[in-house]
Amino acid sequence: MNTLELLNRVREGSVSPEEALLQLKAEPFVELGYAKVDHHRKVRQGSTEVIYGEGKTAEQTVGIVQNLMTNGSECVMVTRCPKATYELISETLGNVRYHDEARICTIGVPPEPSPNSRVGVLTAGTSDIPVAEEAAVTAETHGSKVERIYDVGVSGIHRLLSQAERLMECRAVVVVAGMEGALPSVVGGLVDVPVIAVPTSVGYGSAFGGITALLSMMNSCSSDVSVVNIDNGFSAGYIASMIDRRSAPL
Amino acid sequence: MNTLELLNRVREGSVSPEEALLQLKAEPFVELGYAKVDHHRKVRQGSTEVIYGEGKTAEQTVGIVQNLMTNGSECVMVTRCPKATYELISETLGNVRYHDEARICTIGVPPEPSPNSRVGVLTAGTSDIPVAEEAAVTAETHGSKVERIYDVGVSGIHRLLSQAERLMECRAVVVVAGMEGALPSVVGGLVDVPVIAVPTSVGYGSAFGGITALLSMMNSCSSDVSVVNIDNGFSAGYIASMIDRRSAPL
Amino acid sequence: MNTLELLNRVREGSVSPEEALLQLKAEPFVELGYAKVDHHRKVRQGSTEVIYGEGKTAEQTVGIVQNLMTNGSECVMVTRCPKATYELISETLGNVRYHDEARICTIGVPPEPSPNSRVGVLTAGTSDIPVAEEAAVTAETHGSKVERIYDVGVSGIHRLLSQAERLMECRAVVVVAGMEGALPSVVGGLVDVPVIAVPTSVGYGSAFGGITALLSMMNSCSSDVSVVNIDNGFSAGYIASMIDRRSAPL
Amino acid sequence: MNTLELLNRVREGSVSPEEALLQLKAEPFVELGYAKVDHHRKVRQGSTEVIYGEGKTAEQTVGIVQNLMTNGSECVMVTRCPKATYELISETLGNVRYHDEARICTIGVPPEPSPNSRVGVLTAGTSDIPVAEEAAVTAETHGSKVERIYDVGVSGIHRLLSQAERLMECRAVVVVAGMEGALPSVVGGLVDVPVIAVPTSVGYGSAFGGITALLSMMNSCSSDVSVVNIDNGFSAGYIASMIDRRSAPL
Amino acid sequence: MNTLELLNRVREGSVSPEEALLQLKAEPFVELGYAKVDHHRKVRQGSTEVIYGEGKTAEQTVGIVQNLMTNGSECVMVTRCPKATYELISETLGNVRYHDEARICTIGVPPEPSPNSRVGVLTAGTSDIPVAEEAAVTAETHGSKVERIYDVGVSGIHRLLSQAERLMECRAVVVVAGMEGALPSVVGGLVDVPVIAVPTSVGYGSAFGGITALLSMMNSCSSDVSVVNIDNGFSAGYIASMIDRRSAPL
Amino acid sequence: MNTLELLNRVREGSVSPEEALLQLKAEPFVELGYAKVDHHRKVRQGSTEVIYGEGKTAEQTVGIVQNLMTNGSECVMVTRCPKATYELISETLGNVRYHDEARICTIGVPPEPSPNSRVGVLTAGTSDIPVAEEAAVTAETHGSKVERIYDVGVSGIHRLLSQAERLMECRAVVVVAGMEGALPSVVGGLVDVPVIAVPTSVGYGSAFGGITALLSMMNSCSSDVSVVNIDNGFSAGYIASMIDRRSAPL
Amino acid sequence: MNTLELLNRVREGSVSPEEALLQLKAEPFVELGYAKVDHHRKVRQGSTEVIYGEGKTAEQTVGIVQNLMTNGSECVMVTRCPKATYELISETLGNVRYHDEARICTIGVPPEPSPNSRVGVLTAGTSDIPVAEEAAVTAETHGSKVERIYDVGVSGIHRLLSQAERLMECRAVVVVAGMEGALPSVVGGLVDVPVIAVPTSVGYGSAFGGITALLSMMNSCSSDVSVVNIDNGFSAGYIASMIDRRSAPL
Amino acid sequence: MNTLELLNRVREGSVSPEEALLQLKAEPFVELGYAKVDHHRKVRQGSTEVIYGEGKTAEQTVGIVQNLMTNGSECVMVTRCPKATYELISETLGNVRYHDEARICTIGVPPEPSPNSRVGVLTAGTSDIPVAEEAAVTAETHGSKVERIYDVGVSGIHRLLSQAERLMECRAVVVVAGMEGALPSVVGGLVDVPVIAVPTSVGYGSAFGGITALLSMMNSCSSDVSVVNIDNGFSAGYIASMIDRRSAPL
Repeated sequence: MNTLELLNRVREGSVSPEEALLQLKAEPFVELGYAKVDHHRKVRQGSTEVIYGEGKTAEQTVGIVQNLMTNGSECVMVTRCPKATYELISETLGNVRYHDEARICTIGVPPEPSPNSRVGVLTAGTSDIPVAEEAAVTAETHGSKVERIYDVGVSGIHRLLSQAERLMECRAVVVVAGMEGALPSVVGGLVDVPVIAVPTSVGYGSAFGGITALLSMMNSCSSDVSVVNIDNGFSAGYIASMIDRRSAPL
Repeated sequence: MNTLELLNRVREGSVSPEEALLQLKAEPFVELGYAKVDHHRKVRQGSTEVIYGEGKTAEQTVGIVQNLMTNGSECVMVTRCPKATYELISETLGNVRYHDEARICTIGVPPEPSPNSRVGVLTAGTSDIPVAEEAAVTAETHGSKVERIYDVGVSGIHRLLSQAERLMECRAVVVVAGMEGALPSVVGGLVDVPVIAVPTSVGYGSAFGGITALLSMMNSCSSDVSVVNIDNGFSAGYIASMIDRRSAPL
Repeated sequence: MNTLELLNRVREGSVSPEEALLQLKAEPFVELGYAKVDHHRKVRQGSTEVIYGEGKTAEQTVGIVQNLMTNGSECVMVTRCPKATYELISETLGNVRYHDEARICTIGVPPEPSPNSRVGVLTAGTSDIPVAEEAAVTAETHGSKVERIYDVGVSGIHRLLSQAERLMECRAVVVVAGMEGALPSVVGGLVDVPVIAVPTSVGYGSAFGGITALLSMMNSCSSDVSVVNIDNGFSAGYIASMIDRRSAPL
Repeated sequence: MNTLELLNRVREGSVSPEEALLQLKAEPFVELGYAKVDHHRKVRQGSTEVIYGEGKTAEQTVGIVQNLMTNGSECVMVTRCPKATYELISETLGNVRYHDEARICTIGVPPEPSPNSRVGVLTAGTSDIPVAEEAAVTAETHGSKVERIYDVGVSGIHRLLSQAERLMECRAVVVVAGMEGALPSVVGGLVDVPVIAVPTSVGYGSAFGGITALLSMMNSCSSDVSVVNIDNGFSAGYIASMIDRRSAPL
Repeated sequence: MNTLELLNRVREGSVSPEEALLQLKAEPFVELGYAKVDHHRKVRQGSTEVIYGEGKTAEQTVGIVQNLMTNGSECVMVTRCPKATYELISETLGNVRYHDEARICTIGVPPEPSPNSRVGVLTAGTSDIPVAEEAAVTAETHGSKVERIYDVGVSGIHRLLSQAERLMECRAVVVVAGMEGALPSVVGGLVDVPVIAVPTSVGYGSAFGGITALLSMMNSCSSDVSVVNIDNGFSAGYIASMIDRRSAPL
Repeated sequence: MNTLELLNRVREGSVSPEEALLQLKAEPFVELGYAKVDHHRKVRQGSTEVIYGEGKTAEQTVGIVQNLMTNGSECVMVTRCPKATYELISETLGNVRYHDEARICTIGVPPEPSPNSRVGVLTAGTSDIPVAEEAAVTAETHGSKVERIYDVGVSGIHRLLSQAERLMECRAVVVVAGMEGALPSVVGGLVDVPVIAVPTSVGYGSAFGGITALLSMMNSCSSDVSVVNIDNGFSAGYIASMIDRRSAPL
Repeated sequence: MNTLELLNRVREGSVSPEEALLQLKAEPFVELGYAKVDHHRKVRQGSTEVIYGEGKTAEQTVGIVQNLMTNGSECVMVTRCPKATYELISETLGNVRYHDEARICTIGVPPEPSPNSRVGVLTAGTSDIPVAEEAAVTAETHGSKVERIYDVGVSGIHRLLSQAERLMECRAVVVVAGMEGALPSVVGGLVDVPVIAVPTSVGYGSAFGGITALLSMMNSCSSDVSVVNIDNGFSAGYIASMIDRRSAPL
Repeated sequence: MNTLELLNRVREGSVSPEEALLQLKAEPFVELGYAKVDHHRKVRQGSTEVIYGEGKTAEQTVGIVQNLMTNGSECVMVTRCPKATYELISETLGNVRYHDEARICTIGVPPEPSPNSRVGVLTAGTSDIPVAEEAAVTAETHGSKVERIYDVGVSGIHRLLSQAERLMECRAVVVVAGMEGALPSVVGGLVDVPVIAVPTSVGYGSAFGGITALLSMMNSCSSDVSVVNIDNGFSAGYIASMIDRRSAPL
């Protein structure tokens, strides 16, 4: 029974104000507060549900996925999904796909991107690609079209510049880089859309598992760069897609 | 208008269920959740109110204090209170006292401690005393009796041991130390009550403004030690007094 | 002479292909590449120009501002602008305004916000307000409407929740917090738009001048949070406004 | 022979003062000083003995346990106890129980909790549960009743708020969180009892194996939060139980 | 079609200026800027190509090597080359050599060093030798003659001084050291040529995997010392050889 | 009344065993344990008393000094002594001397060094001299003869080697260095006596106020080097003198 | 008497072998060892002498300069020279020049650069210029011709690319950058000569006074980049000039 | 040919002064400087030779040991010696002994300790014992008598105090502790001889593999404490034995 029904019953007299009060107190946030929040969410957000696969057994993940699909989800996405989990899911459900490099398993049909949708995903080197793929597949699964522009690190600046045309079309850009993490600053100076920088743990010695790249990105001289955690391709793809999908046509 | 009144009006028909819903949505957390929380607070907590004096003008602080006293507070305490602020307060209100080393100004009458109340406040050196006084005065102002045991650092262990008797009476202990921050471990091994450790910024070089003491306390081999922020005498005194006041007689 | 003119002269024979080649080589990036980039920028970006005021003499800043206004800028904004610089500017030019807390001076008329424009700017405490104001004024000066929701730190969660309605309207949110930097995670869980987190240097001891808040935000359990540098209100406001202005109506 | 007996013999003349002096000097701390300390301990503390299981062979641990039980301990608890050690213990002794997630083995009968006893143990995520269980089982084994409130992280604040009622009953609260470690600040603002925060090594990248959570908790804007070492569920449970058991009824 | 041809066609009228402009815009950086840069490179640089072997399959590396050799490279060098990769290469191609300690595989004939060529490669201890060999083989493969002066750490200063004569002949010096990283300062004071310092991850405890050595080298009191990343023998050898080969005879 | 007297009174019956027990419990550590310790101290230690001058008023320091001299101290030394404090002392007492660079004030007559006494105090640069002087004067005031060997940093190794003869005579060596802190390793390799290394805050940038030197010294490849805190000349001089004075003649 | 004279006297019999041995032992390093080193230095190095001005009184510096000029130095350079020191020098000596931004005072005539000499000095921003000037003036004073290419940071990559021609002429390049320190990687990818990177303390928050830039440069993906200490323009200019002056004509 | 022979030949005329000069220059450091140093070493030092066993094959170590024994060493000690290496040594040579916990293998007969020799080796916990044993066996093998006082951590201060008598006899003390590293401060306050503190990597979370203990020891409030690297029992034992053996009888 939702809150309005409850209030109607108070109106009708079939529930006393005191009984209603008790019920409202019992779960105020779920019944009222969070329902509100949740309602806003449902309206605005895409319909893709996300499960963090790491640290769950294949059986647990399958259970959660089935539950969601049964309750009407059109698309579910499992991040950091072990291959074995994917295999178990695909035995049980249809429309299942495994993205190897991204380590993401998708179930169901992702929303169709709008015609102008365009998220750029760039990497400095080839070792950064798994993190970039996590971002790219996340954005695609949430309904964005993705331009992959890989291996355009700053020590060969012409590689990036030769892709300037494709880069200019994007409505949000994810830049993935390890080592000195310099690429977001250069990209941020070229484009005029939000740049989400993802430091990676690529590098050795004083790369400190991504800290150097993180700090470098944090101090970008380009004003349109913000940063997420080391190797966190998922958040970057999620944020970029959120921006992309809500952008008005140019 | 509280929730029950609102529901009664729904019952009477003077408020429609839809209007009531909007109102319930508008402040669900305040009206239900937090009010509940707040009630618990009022019942259990002591009546002393705390104002953080730093970064406020003397006039601002005086205004807040007057407002609280007018609304029935019996005791107000201003931490990190500049002397000038104290002077302005004492021109306006009675029962004002300034604790120089603690940099705390109290207004009104603190609650009387119970007969068994006893909070120990220890320091390793004399330079740690201002932080210790912040803890001690905070505890006193919240209704605890305080044993001050100062300058009992571990490089002269007999100084601490000669105070063992007094220490044994305490129902919570605050230990304030800079440099290597070793005192809480020793105290934690002697007493059988919670020890709140406060690292201070006393020291130089690799004392790193209190970080070394903080890390040392964090790694205490005594199981009854927990730690608050560097120089945070207030929290330590607040927590210790909270434990002390609720303790049953031995 | 732009590239097309040059090519036309080659066509006409008044410039030889070899001469044209030399000229194209001399400034290839400016003449072609960047011009292209620049054109994209001009089309998409708002017309507000930004000057970083710190480390420039009042005279230098005035000179740059005059130059920009003469060349057709409609709005110029000086960040980290000393009051004395503002005073000199206002002696020379009209339509000058100084935003005290933000330390920003604006000259000219900022673009009018669209009806649906809405950027939320939140702070955990009152000491975070100057950084928040830098973000807010930056967003306003770039053409966004700003909701200021200040002093809603997580230790009194009801304060934030009571503002949920206003928060839900925003199309991008800036969250400014020092100390433990926990607010962005809570906000990120409530809203479904990008959250730009700004750590501040507010706090003491192991707050480490904002590093703790930065790390905390970096590790947010909310997927929609990205982070900019400590005290960098400008970038946060700039990015949030960029997202806001391009958002399609809900 | 204890000290009083010795002194009586001096009185009787069967031991000369010089002989007594020698004997007193030989083991002053054990005979007098520590005995005193120890006596205080025995009186106040619960009777549960604790063994740190890591780095001991199963045989060593079994030996120590048997020795304690023989000497009259009613309850012994082995922390970080390998399963193999548990199995060897249960072959030898009765009343043995293994708490899988907590990795704790208990032998004998823990003290019965008092009717009002209540320690809250909260976690931000599901990965924090093993550390929380170490805290919870420790508290239970020392004679407290435990409320487990798990997976109530701040990015979905309604989950925590819906448990407010249960939380309000607690006389001490342990909050376990990794990543940004924000939960203790929110909890600290809701309750009015001591909050013991335990950072966990959950997270990746700039979570730095728990350092970010630790620093965040250290800088909590809630005054009732103190912190123990990363993953140190034992100390948190021990301190919380100590506070709980001595609390007077509300 | 290169730019001059394009311009000639504009002259002839077979390409319109507008068409030419589009084409120039499409790849401006590649067509003009980088070609220029690239030409400089080809002229000045040695002919040795470098492949980073780590993270590539043996098959991938063999493919790249074959491609380079087919396109006229005289010498190819694979750094961090697994032995298995070397074996596969040597099955396919001739003139293959594996440098065990350096973990470098070379294919083809390195350039002959000039008579005066001389790069010094020094180590503090024997554990630093693998990194030193990476530097030494890199320098040799790029056309330098190398003096290896190993195990001359500063705690036995006579060992270094007894090699002073050989050291004096060098035109660039690589100094490889772990632990306290003191050797470059001493060497920098003896020679009057650039010293490239390489910190190594040799050491334990507060050696922090090379950070201490890195910081130490960074703060060298000798003005001729610059530093590369921890364990980065390749860059050091590359830079030293670059300096050596371009040096005029004394 | 000491313990034996107490026991005698028990024997006589003038003190009951129970009363004696209480008294013994009251100060067991002072009466037995520490008294014992303290006696050892008096016998072995030199007669120089040390006062830490920083953070004390001139009047406080004078008071302590007078008290010590009155109670029979032959020599008192005030470290980190402001000049004004020295001046006030010299108005009141005789035999007062101020060591400008060391910032030490000595009162009374230091013990005469033995014929073989020899403590070496070395510095890498001239900026390290104040810290070195603190060590040197401390050693002299405790009864050692000091060899000052200053400005012998490792970038000009011949400067150190030319002093080898003087260095060889020393029975303990203090080495003071900032920046890369390499000197102790070189000295440790030359001498065969304990080397006490003192990092200084000399340097800039990544010298980190002495941390780099500290870490470097900590990782010395010479086995006879131990380290004290940044700028802690006092401890180094104190330890070196302790070793020197107890050394048997060679 | 130098060593050869001594040996001649041994030959003549006016000094016995035993006497000579004693004398050789007395100062072996100065008389033999270092003389050798020194001789090598004199032959190869330029004739410019360098004095570190910081921490010396104007009088001390003037004294050293006069001493050097009297002993035949053709050019002396004082780094970090206070203006007052310059003024005192120019009262005493001729040919004195003060470089304001570089804070360098030169006395005498620097060596004439060779025709092909060319050291590039680049900065990312205008705030980096003082450090760059220290490098540039150092290189000029040691006999190099300097190309200054300032304010070409990576967020506006066209600014750098438009200077590619000038950059290509350089035989060594100094790159000065604060904040994220990305410029050296881009430059290192364009040129084929050694790049000496200088991190600066420009920036705020997580720029950490130059540490972020330092780490970023350390992890450059360009193989020709080595790094000196934060703000250490002098070493960079010194090394670059050393490389430049010894380079053979292209 | 030594220097005197050379000079004699100059005297005789069989070697010209110029030839002699060249020869003297060739190895000045070895022939004069270091030989001198070396002589001092031989005279003063004990006769025990030390080999660092880690990273050497059993065969390599056996080879070095045999070589030393053949050349007259009376005692050789292999640190961090794998058991397999010990076994191979004991097949080849007599008088071989393996110290399990210390991981040290000794060959031959260590020097007999003098009657007054006494080095204290203390640990805070049982996990610190392997590092302590490395120190203890090192001291014994160099000719000291060792008092082992283990498991006397500060959380049970009576355990340490009950050993005060034995501690007072020591002429140098090694204190080994992990976690908060507090023990050296307490010991330093009890004894009046040099205390060599060894941080260990014992602990977890913010123990940071020994850094916390290291920093804590570095900031000891006891003036007689100096510190060696984490887990470096060897250096501590070496230094303590050096001090012990040279001490004059009390």
